[in-house]
Amino acid sequence: MELDLLIQNCDVLTVEVAPEGPQVRFRPGMDIGVQGARVVAVEPTGTLRPRPATQVISGDRRLAIPGLINTHAHVPMVLFRGLAEDVTIEAWFNDYIWPLESNLTPEDVYWGALLGIAEMIEAGITCVADHYFAMDQVAQAVVESGIRANLVWAVFGHQGPEMLDRTCEFVERWQGQADGRITAWLGPHAPYTCPPDFLRLAAERARELGVGIHIHVAETREQVQRSLEQHGRTPIQLLADTQILERPTLLAHCLYPQEEDYPLLQAADTGIAHAPKTYLKLGMGTAPLARFWELDIPVGLATDGAVSSNTLDILEQLRLMALAQKDAVQDPTAMPVAQALAIAFQGSARVVHQADALGHLAPGGLADIVLLRQDGVHVTPRHDPGANLIYSARAADVDTVIVHGRVLLQEGRLLTIDKARVQAEVARRLARLAQRVPGRRIATYPA
Amino acid sequence: MELDLLIQNCDVLTVEVAPEGPQVRFRPGMDIGVQGARVVAVEPTGTLRPRPATQVISGDRRLAIPGLINTHAHVPMVLFRGLAEDVTIEAWFNDYIWPLESNLTPEDVYWGALLGIAEMIEAGITCVADHYFAMDQVAQAVVESGIRANLVWAVFGHQGPEMLDRTCEFVERWQGQADGRITAWLGPHAPYTCPPDFLRLAAERARELGVGIHIHVAETREQVQRSLEQHGRTPIQLLADTQILERPTLLAHCLYPQEEDYPLLQAADTGIAHAPKTYLKLGMGTAPLARFWELDIPVGLATDGAVSSNTLDILEQLRLMALAQKDAVQDPTAMPVAQALAIAFQGSARVVHQADALGHLAPGGLADIVLLRQDGVHVTPRHDPGANLIYSARAADVDTVIVHGRVLLQEGRLLTIDKARVQAEVARRLARLAQRVPGRRIATYPA
Repeated sequence: MELDLLIQNCDVLTVEVAPEGPQVRFRPGMDIGVQGARVVAVEPTGTLRPRPATQVISGDRRLAIPGLINTHAHVPMVLFRGLAEDVTIEAWFNDYIWPLESNLTPEDVYWGALLGIAEMIEAGITCVADHYFAMDQVAQAVVESGIRANLVWAVFGHQGPEMLDRTCEFVERWQGQADGRITAWLGPHAPYTCPPDFLRLAAERARELGVGIHIHVAETREQVQRSLEQHGRTPIQLLADTQILERPTLLAHCLYPQEEDYPLLQAADTGIAHAPKTYLKLGMGTAPLARFWELDIPVGLATDGAVSSNTLDILEQLRLMALAQKDAVQDPTAMPVAQALAIAFQGSARVVHQADALGHLAPGGLADIVLLRQDGVHVTPRHDPGANLIYSARAADVDTVIVHGRVLLQEGRLLTIDKARVQAEVARRLARLAQRVPGRRIATYPA
Repeated sequence: MELDLLIQNCDVLTVEVAPEGPQVRFRPGMDIGVQGARVVAVEPTGTLRPRPATQVISGDRRLAIPGLINTHAHVPMVLFRGLAEDVTIEAWFNDYIWPLESNLTPEDVYWGALLGIAEMIEAGITCVADHYFAMDQVAQAVVESGIRANLVWAVFGHQGPEMLDRTCEFVERWQGQADGRITAWLGPHAPYTCPPDFLRLAAERARELGVGIHIHVAETREQVQRSLEQHGRTPIQLLADTQILERPTLLAHCLYPQEEDYPLLQAADTGIAHAPKTYLKLGMGTAPLARFWELDIPVGLATDGAVSSNTLDILEQLRLMALAQKDAVQDPTAMPVAQALAIAFQGSARVVHQADALGHLAPGGLADIVLLRQDGVHVTPRHDPGANLIYSARAADVDTVIVHGRVLLQEGRLLTIDKARVQAEVARRLARLAQRVPGRRIATYPA
């Protein structure tokens, strides 16, 4: 086999999702062979032979897992990390985020995207679904950094159809770029910021372009209540009414589906991005993950933006998801190890609509692979490698990150991003970016 | 000033607890001078001069905080990390922990203690209140590693007064050892495992020895209910009735105080160890921290044992405390940054009954100091250093750890523990330690 990349003697941890339930599969002492952008073999160590040109990476004392997927983020918001602490959701939007975002230039977004992507790669994230604006700059950062991305240019109803059309042009410019690492969709912000006619138009544009839609929905009880009062419909019913749910969709958060929404979600080609750190920090409650699981509605893990979650760290979100679910039902047997990992791996791959290619680390899949160091005292002993990954490992254990067959991080060193340059560029923008000008904001959250 | 140790040009983050509420105090560009075991000066950089024999540590791009205190742990349980996942509390005790602990030899406890202390030092923990058995071995590990500790030898009622007396002998052997780094108290396990007469005897022994008592109490609603049924008294009333609360006490968990318990807690010389990861993971609910705060009942942070919390990481517990409290009351303004840090610093110092010496990083206090790297992309930018510490920093950022004026960790390298040796010793014990022999356990949790 003519391998381009060979990882030798790693332990491999994946999840097998069988009808009787998910099972953690742990295979010590394995080789992983990569040709181009794809995994071609996962075999006991010593089986695969490098040719002279093969890049060989030692997997000694390393755990290989499928590349982690961040199913919903606003990556450039790392620029505002720590600027909106201990405030209500209304204040968070109206007094902090949306005024702060009015300061952003496209160049700011570019440097913010690189800063956030650096954090994600260091944390073992190989693919991100990003929902922001000035997205050409984010796409450029994706090209340069080597990460995989599903990108949408966020648009609010008050910006009108012209702005929606500009986000369609973004899709046409970037679809399939970067050797196929970039997927571009449409990103109407939410049913509470886009009226039904605007959502209908977005669905029509998505159909014309043959793309999906990434949208926030049903984040709080109040949003659902307001939707029922204003429209006589739940937010998810509005998505169905406006044909949004006839497209492939990625629904961010969806904490409060109503009983009548479940059949709509089951019938749709959809997935839910779950970002528990934001929900805990903003006191939002949590999503009915057990119900989603039972109905086979796909759920994946997300970081959301760093102004609510303060990190872009999927291992942390994985841990918080499991802890928060056990807490919510006050049952320590809820969300067991294998189920949590199935959500992180296969679930997230389904949510970004790449279930065939990502999340399983098997021949034929894309070569998005993470190696974690296993020699830390905090992950010793290793009675249960799956539990260690969820409850003991941390982002700093990530040693090697491979995306699309290319090594982006090796022995903890970023190979594609000049961190010092990025940090210097960010530093000189901070004073300007942190200003909040009274009355100036990009949108208004309805009270 | 004749300095033994000088940290140059660090940023210093502490909390000032004023009557109007706690305030984060951030001072960039400071020097910290140490003489012997004590901090003697915290001054703008350049003010303090080293003598030839002064050990100088660069604080460039480092954040200095008071050494983190772990107010309740079972350190050697790291040996069982990952062995009791996704099980009920009853099964956790009766089918896992107590059978597993019947395998332990004193030598196992020694190596387990060193493994756990290594994890704690790497995570910036400078002091631990440990509640376990074979405690001479733990004390030996404390001596060798250089950490500070409050140690108790756990005892159950069914082991009888003879065993209680043996734990008193432990106190006499170890009180004030290791240059005063070791404090030894008594450790009757809990009101649900020690009958009132036994608790009364423990209180009497503690009075005779002039020491405090570290005990589990009111961990679950069921424990409180059972206590009311069996004794007509809450678990905390039992502690008062049996004179336990007339001693200095450290109460682990205390999730379910009843209304009649609050005056007892306020009147006592006590503090509560709060370990939120265990509570989330075992679906136990959480403690009324807002009420404790309002009544000025001291609360500190704890890891509990690694079989429930999977890590010995106080930064993680700090983050989870704040997130869980905001979640519990569904209010993002609850447990603001300064309050969470006041609990981690001064609160924990009060809980281990060393409020004068620890938790404030000021002249006159003990030199227990942690430096964290501040150049990671995940803590960039630094709009709010306090929020970054709680919500973005991680144990792996810990760079330097000083206890009692001695450097235990420098640039991430442990200076006092041979990690490879410890890991090898642990590895060869695992197969034996992981066995569960039907019917063999050290105690029984009442169903």
